[in-house]
Order: sequence, then structure tokens, then C-alpha cells
Amino acid sequence: MNRYPAPTLDQVPEDIRARILEVQDKAGFVPNVFLALARRPAEWRAFFAYHDALMTPETVGRESGLTKGEREMIVTATSAANGCLYCVVAHGAILRIYEKKPLVADQVAVNWRKADITPRQRAMLDFAMKVCLRSNEIEEADFPPLHAHGFSDEDIWDIAAITAFFGLSNRMASFSNMQPNPEFYLMGRVPKGK
Amino acid sequence: MNRYPAPTLDQVPEDIRARILEVQDKAGFVPNVFLALARRPAEWRAFFAYHDALMTPETVGRESGLTKGEREMIVTATSAANGCLYCVVAHGAILRIYEKKPLVADQVAVNWRKADITPRQRAMLDFAMKVCLRSNEIEEADFPPLHAHGFSDEDIWDIAAITAFFGLSNRMASFSNMQPNPEFYLMGRVPKGK
Amino acid sequence: MNRYPAPTLDQVPEDIRARILEVQDKAGFVPNVFLALARRPAEWRAFFAYHDALMTPETVGRESGLTKGEREMIVTATSAANGCLYCVVAHGAILRIYEKKPLVADQVAVNWRKADITPRQRAMLDFAMKVCLRSNEIEEADFPPLHAHGFSDEDIWDIAAITAFFGLSNRMASFSNMQPNPEFYLMGRVPKGK
Amino acid sequence: MNRYPAPTLDQVPEDIRARILEVQDKAGFVPNVFLALARRPAEWRAFFAYHDALMTPETVGRESGLTKGEREMIVTATSAANGCLYCVVAHGAILRIYEKKPLVADQVAVNWRKADITPRQRAMLDFAMKVCLRSNEIEEADFPPLHAHGFSDEDIWDIAAITAFFGLSNRMASFSNMQPNPEFYLMGRVPKGK
Amino acid sequence: MNRYPAPTLDQVPEDIRARILEVQDKAGFVPNVFLALARRPAEWRAFFAYHDALMTPETVGRESGLTKGEREMIVTATSAANGCLYCVVAHGAILRIYEKKPLVADQVAVNWRKADITPRQRAMLDFAMKVCLRSNEIEEADFPPLHAHGFSDEDIWDIAAITAFFGLSNRMASFSNMQPNPEFYLMGRVPKGK
Amino acid sequence: MNRYPAPTLDQVPEDIRARILEVQDKAGFVPNVFLALARRPAEWRAFFAYHDALMTPETVGRESGLTKGEREMIVTATSAANGCLYCVVAHGAILRIYEKKPLVADQVAVNWRKADITPRQRAMLDFAMKVCLRSNEIEEADFPPLHAHGFSDEDIWDIAAITAFFGLSNRMASFSNMQPNPEFYLMGRVPKGK
Repeated sequence: MNRYPAPTLDQVPEDIRARILEVQDKAGFVPNVFLALARRPAEWRAFFAYHDALMTPETVGRESGLTKGEREMIVTATSAANGCLYCVVAHGAILRIYEKKPLVADQVAVNWRKADITPRQRAMLDFAMKVCLRSNEIEEADFPPLHAHGFSDEDIWDIAAITAFFGLSNRMASFSNMQPNPEFYLMGRVPKGK
Repeated sequence: MNRYPAPTLDQVPEDIRARILEVQDKAGFVPNVFLALARRPAEWRAFFAYHDALMTPETVGRESGLTKGEREMIVTATSAANGCLYCVVAHGAILRIYEKKPLVADQVAVNWRKADITPRQRAMLDFAMKVCLRSNEIEEADFPPLHAHGFSDEDIWDIAAITAFFGLSNRMASFSNMQPNPEFYLMGRVPKGK
Repeated sequence: MNRYPAPTLDQVPEDIRARILEVQDKAGFVPNVFLALARRPAEWRAFFAYHDALMTPETVGRESGLTKGEREMIVTATSAANGCLYCVVAHGAILRIYEKKPLVADQVAVNWRKADITPRQRAMLDFAMKVCLRSNEIEEADFPPLHAHGFSDEDIWDIAAITAFFGLSNRMASFSNMQPNPEFYLMGRVPKGK
Repeated sequence: MNRYPAPTLDQVPEDIRARILEVQDKAGFVPNVFLALARRPAEWRAFFAYHDALMTPETVGRESGLTKGEREMIVTATSAANGCLYCVVAHGAILRIYEKKPLVADQVAVNWRKADITPRQRAMLDFAMKVCLRSNEIEEADFPPLHAHGFSDEDIWDIAAITAFFGLSNRMASFSNMQPNPEFYLMGRVPKGK
Repeated sequence: MNRYPAPTLDQVPEDIRARILEVQDKAGFVPNVFLALARRPAEWRAFFAYHDALMTPETVGRESGLTKGEREMIVTATSAANGCLYCVVAHGAILRIYEKKPLVADQVAVNWRKADITPRQRAMLDFAMKVCLRSNEIEEADFPPLHAHGFSDEDIWDIAAITAFFGLSNRMASFSNMQPNPEFYLMGRVPKGK
Repeated sequence: MNRYPAPTLDQVPEDIRARILEVQDKAGFVPNVFLALARRPAEWRAFFAYHDALMTPETVGRESGLTKGEREMIVTATSAANGCLYCVVAHGAILRIYEKKPLVADQVAVNWRKADITPRQRAMLDFAMKVCLRSNEIEEADFPPLHAHGFSDEDIWDIAAITAFFGLSNRMASFSNMQPNPEFYLMGRVPKGK
């Protein structure tokens, strides 16, 4: 279904395979993006290095005022605004898990203004959507409302950078017709115990 | 003028400083993006690794059917569509130099449909603008017109990826109010000999 | 959460209560729209009479060339285009059940162009989206492509009318902040046997 | 001119014919919408039941804080926003008559911000246009300005529901190329006495 | 109602007064635009010189392949697209008179695609709307369809220039809140003999 | 490259030639617009009479609160919003010269919100862009912010009229594929002394 053929696991360079195996080990399957982008190893490495620097800041020795759930909330809202099927489904799944809210991903994807999120998170998505859709109009007046909700300038950089990075990811996935793994659709929807 | 304070050259990690000095050596000045992003070294490294993988594919052992000028043409058109001052001015300068056409960057930035470029380059920008503005609508029918102009599927990936990557760059520059170095505005406008 | 208080089941007129009990019997719960609109019985009756005339044409002695799944596909795509949380979640659930495809609703809601549907269904949604977003531009030339996929003029009326009716429904639900019942989110995602 | 053939008066069910004759008696002609929709009696009945519940609330035992003229003002502005020829012309005529202002319908249709209406009516149309064009963005903050002009929550429901219902009507009329009766164009423009 | 006070007839320069009296003589009243713009005589003179060169080409020794009615059709469609109350009402009146069609102006203003006009006129308005709304996208491919309908390159210049000139007029009228004379609303709607 | 053949200098009427020679004398070359429009002398005369009344008000005995640089700033921003290559390049050149700021034209053209201009000039461009893109929405509330920056009502007329006039100019230049003279691209970028 992918417009561009993805390599198999044994066709990718060793460092990439190691990371993919690690992900597979944790998730139980290999998210399609890992193999789809691996056909160009240099881009793969840059993509995931960027991803990790923003989404797991502790891996690059940085702390962030955003929770893991908030970061995925930004990704889900951005990906919905860009109409990216892969990223809405994949990151919506992670959002459900991190926030422990089985309904929140669909809410954020369809209409974040109606989602069951905090006023702080709403202000965060308001800003993220401006970066996503009208970044040329951002101005100093956009910062104080975020400060009022406790976001530092570094947190605001995180919001903008996550939005910008997944705008790149959305365009690559849509352009190449990347399909989400079926597993993502159900993840985080059913309580573990059941 | 930058919304976020940039580090000085002696405050950045050694590998980043080395690259910056190399650029300074070649260009005669340090383009602001190099210091502005260096406040977060991990993101800096991912950003420039991605940049190099797409813009100087030979550095990652890859060939591309796009010329250096065509790549900068995509960057300039994308940055104009996103209203990014830094990238239009900086990459417009490089476009003028690579294409040896002092007028082409302003043409592409204001209205690429009126620019003095080839039909092939126009088809390229047509596709790039769809990736930039309506990536969710891309479909199989968008590929054959590009093939007809001699672009391979790999070249098309390049067009899409450059557009997507600079969409990220544009959002970061606009959000943080990055200003182009004054030197860029004039570069490539006056014949060297004069 | 609803902006307007909904009546309880014992506060609504007898005919409305009868229908609601019937739905509850079948679904296992009362979809919020049934009580939310019941605060105005005359509008409730018109709304569901219209709904039934389009969505269960056999109840008004009419046949339709659209399958039940196709009708829900139109509702889901329309509701996503209008950003209506209630209708995307509720009708997405019904779509999954009718089509027996646990993934199709999220695909149609996020980007119907990438959904796992037939070319006929894609042409159907193409037309529905024109009715939804640019009905003033519809012209004779929009009909032959639908005929080519086997849709009769009556079927095309169905596509248009379902799109138009749920545009009304979407506006009412969004304006009054109607929330989907939690049950909808999971319906049709897990095979029955499990 | 209609894309779909309309039945003649003697082809429609008795209850529909009775209503049409009543309208004809009052208006002097049969507005095209009555016959055009009558080709599907069940939809016709639901349509006019909904119409009456909103436009003549007294017929369903309800009072409304909106005047008859204000209701037609909403219809005219909505229909203009949706580019629906039938509804702008037909309801513009009724608006002129109810408001006893021969100029107001053209003003509301072309640019309601410049129309000779009260500040209360302007706030009403402001909200109606948000329901019409961006219903997904409606939020609690949209209500207090309407309360300040004396609109109750029930009146606001009326504004939203009339806008939503005629959005449906507009799409049906535009899609099926319904043409306004020539009589509508002049109604209410010339003082009766002349 | 005008945002800017208009001079009285005896306050304007002699040449302007002469033209205004001539118009008054012909129309029976002074269209507001003549006095509203006269507060700046130099701009008035340029405005009407431009107007005449395009709308009455015979006064500047030029012939046009557009009929008088077609020229007013372009003005009405352009003014509707720009939401200009003054120009839609005033030029809609003239359109009705020239075309001897009491219904055509409302049709063109609300939705020109549904108007009772010829295919040639529809192609003409199609092009005019592109000049009005997306002039940057006009390209060589836009000309042959017009040639096929018998428009020469000079006629096409007329279409574009009339659209462009009334875009100026629309912005001046809307910005200064110019109101159409009440007389315009009814002109051309009632057969003369009656 | 022009879609319409331009006359040569000896083919144009005497008064037009005189003005063109005067411009050539001052600028060192004949800006293309002067010959391109001269194929229709009556329109040429009206165009430049309008231009002069707004851009050199002293030639019509009027003073303006806008500086020459501010007027060109409006032209450059308007032309960029309309995607008009000729006007951005030609008037950007004049803007650089009047403001004695070699960088300001590119800044205003790419993203005026990021340009090195005063808050007063930003308010001016804010209003100009509303006239350019949404003139139908202008209302009384748009005026006080301009008054607060010292703009009189007459100055505001100037802002609106310049925006409206160059909207006309932009459409004519784009439609006819008018190309800027190469000389414009470099004007005002290099200090004279060098």
C-alpha cells in the first residue's frame, strides 16, 4: 500500500535494525514508519534523532515542562490538522496510553476544542495550531497566555518544535501513502486487565 | 531580535563549533540559523544531519536527479508559501548563486508561476506546493506528470522531503523570530567580477 | 457537559420515549442525541423522521442503491469535515459495524482519500464533500462520474441529502456541545467472538 | 431547469397537496420548493415539519424571542453564505415583507455587516455565520454577547437551528438546481398601495 | 451613513458638477458614488476616466466585443465576490436594464453558476472570477477556452480590466461605507409600461 | 514575455511619450508598465492620473500624512499579498530608496509582520491588508487604532485608496504577465557611494 517499497528488517543497517528490534520488543510489532523511512538510512537517523530530542528529552539530557501525554496531544492535533492518517492513528494510540484516557485521542483528532483536556492543554493546542497553520502570524502577544498557564519559554519551544517536526512527518507519511499498523487502532482503548 | 537568545560560538559543543567555523570560512559570516538552533545541541545535530542528507546527498553517498539549484528553488518556494523571512532570504541567496540567475529568487518567492524557470522546474514546484499546502490530497495521479519530466520516484521523494523539511525549518524560524543575516540580501545579485 | 440540559426519559412525550426505549433495547444504551434533542419534541420528531427517511429508506417504502455502510461512510466523512465530535464518534461506530471493518471509520474520518474503500465509494465521498463544502459549485458535470460507478440519479439524491442532513446534525451537536456516549468509541473495534 | 423532475400537484399525496394548496392560496403561486421536494413524500413531511417547528414556533406550541423578520434575516444571510440562489431570493422576499423594509434583503444578502439592521440583529447574524461556517469553533464565550442583547439560551438555540436547517435546505436546492419562482424577485419591493 | 462626508453639488469643481448633472438628468437622481468620491477631485477624475475607458469604450474611440450587458455582468459578479453592497445594487440595476432581464442581477450576485446566462457569458465570468480572486494563478491555458467562445485577446483584456477596476471600486465603497441610493434597488425590476 | 505586445516609444501618443521620456530621464530606463499599458492610451492616462493623485499628492495640490516610503510600503505589501511579481519588484525597489533601507522591501514582501518597521507602520499595513483581503469586513472599529498612531481620516483614505489602486495594478500586471525590468531587482540594495 506504501507508495515506496520498504526494506525488510535484514536489509537495513545494523544500528537501525537494533533500534527497530528494541521498538518491536516493547510494542509487540514494528510500526510501519520505522521500515518505511529506513530505505534512506541517513534520513532515518536524522528523523529519529530529531524525534527523540523532542519526544524523549531525557535521552538527550534535557527536562521538559510538558508531560509525555501532552507531547502526544500536540502530535495528534497537528496530524489531524494535516490530515495524516498514519500519525493520527499511531500517535493517538500512544496518547491514549500515556494519558490513560481511552477517549481522548478521538476527541483531540476530531475537534480538540471539545476534548476532555485541561485549560492549560487547550492553550497549548491553540498555540500549536497557530504554529501548524499560520506560523507566519506568530508574534510576541502569543507568549503571555502560555506563560499564564505555567509554560516556560523552553516549554513553548517544545510545543512549536513538536508541531513543526510532525508537520514534516505528516507530509512524508501522506505523500508516500504510509498506512498505520492495524495494531495501533485498538491500543489503549481497552483496559489492560480485561 | 531573536525571541530566544542564541549562544555565542564559544558556548557551543565542539562538533557544532567545527561545522560553524567551516561554514563561516566558506560564506564569510555565520548564518544566524547555525547559532540560533545551537542552544539545543541535540536538535541542532538532527536538523543539520537531515539538512545534509537532503541538500547535499553526495555527503551521505546518494545521488539525486535534482540539481543543487532545483533543490534551493524548492526551498525558496516553500519558504515563501509559509511566509518565512529567514529562509526566503537565506535560501533565495543560495538559489541565485547556484542557478547563476540574479533575478530568479525574487521571482520564485513572489510568484513561482511567473518565474524564469523550465517547464520541468515548474512541474516540480507544482508538486512541492501540493506537499506544502495540501499533502493530504496527494494521490497516485500526481506522479505521472513528474515522471513525464524525467523525475524518478527517488527524485520525487527528494522534492517531497525537501518541502517537508523546510516546512519544519520555516515554522521554527518564524516562531522564534529568526532574522536573516544582512549579507544574504545582496548575495548573488551582483556579478562577481564587479 | 451539554450546553443545554437534556430531559430525562420520563420527561419526554410518550412517542419519543417509545422510540428511545427501542433504541436502548437494541444498542444497550441511549445515544445522547436522542435525549439532547428531545427537549424540543417537535424538532425531535422532524429530525428523526428525516433521519429515517434517508438512513433506513425501507421504513418509508423506498429502496436505495447505497448500502447501509455507504450511508454511514458519508455521515462519517461529512461529520469529520464539519469537525463534529458527536457524529464522527457515533456514526463511525455504526460504520465499523455495518462494514465489518474495524479500521475504516478512523480512516474515513482522518483522510478519506487514504481509506480502504472501493473506487465507487471514493467517488461517492468526493461528491459528498463537494455538497458539504462547496454546494454552490455543483454542476451537471459532477453527475456522469457517479453514473459511471453505477449510482442512479436517485442514489445521488441520497448522497446529497445525507450530506446535507448531517450538516444540520453536525451544527446542532457542535453548537450545543453534545458529547458522544463513551460506549461508541469502542463499538465495532473488537471482534464479537472475543 | 430543476435537475430532478418535480411531480405535478395531482401526483402528490393528499396531505402534501392540502398544504401546497394552502400556501398557493396565501401566496398566489406555489413556491418551487414545495413541488420539488414532494417527489419524496417522507422527506417532504420531515422537511416541512422541521421548518414549521423553527419558523412558526407558535404552530408547535412554542414562543420565540426572535421576530418573524429576524428569523428570515438569519435564513437570508445563511443562504447567501452558502451561495443558494433559491433560498436567498425566496426568503429575501419574505424578509422584505415581514420587516416592511424593501431594501433590507439585498443588504443582508450582499454584506450583512453594511445592512440597515439593529446592533442586536447584527450580533445575531454574527453568531449565525459562525454556526454556518465554523460551527466546530463555537464555545462558551460566544453566548454572553448574545445574552447582552437580550437573547435567551432558547433564542440562541433558535438562531443555531434555523442556520443549521437552512444549511440543509441550501445544499438540497443548490445540488438539485432548484430555481426560485419569478414572483419572489419582486415581492415586498413595491409598496402595496401602488 | 457614509464614513466620509460627501460634498454637496455646489461644492464640487465645475467639470465634475457638469458630469454629475448630466447623470442626474439621465437617471433621475445622483448615484452616491459621484458625490462621495468628489471630495477628492483628482481621484474622481481619474476614477471616471478609467470607468469610461472600460465601460463606454466608444467614448474613447474603441470598440469592444463585450456587450454593455456583459460588462455589467462582470461588475455585478466581481462586486458580489468582494461583498460590496454599493456596487452590487447599483450595477445590478444597470445589468437588469441592459440585459432586459429583471431576474439576472440577483442570479449573478448570489450564484452566477446558476444564472440564466449563455455558456459564453459563463466562461467570461469564470475568467473574471479568477482575475478577481486568484490573479496570480492566471496562465496561458486560461485563454483558449475564451477564444473558443469568440472572445478576442482585446475582449479578454476588457474582462480582466473591468474586474480589476471594480475591485478597486469595491474596496473604496466598502471601506468608506458607501450606501447605494434607494432608487437602484427597484430599477429594471418592473416593466416600463406598468 | 508580456502576454500582450507593448508599443514602442514612437508609437505612443505625444503626451504619453513625454511622460515616459521624463521617467526614463530620471530612472535611467523605462519601467515596463509605462509601455505595456500604453497600448490603450485612455486607460494609460486614467491609470497614471490615479497613480499620481495617490502617490504624489503634492502634484494635485494635496498633502498627505503618509511619507513617500510609507506609501511604497503599502504598495509592496499589497502586491505581495496579491502575488504580483512586477509590482513587488518595481515598488520594492522604490521602497528601498525612499526608506534608505536596503533590506526593508524583502522583509515587507515576505512577511511584513517580521519587518523592521515602526509600530505605526505595522498598524498601517494591518489595515491595508484588511482592505486588500477582506474589505467587506471593514467597520468603524478599524479606525481608532489608526487614529491612535496619528493617522487622520484623510491618511486612512490614502491607505485604503493606495491598497485598492494597486490591487487593480496587480491584477493587470499578473493577468498580462508583465515582467519587471531587470534594473529594479538591484536598485536601492547597494549604497550609492560604492
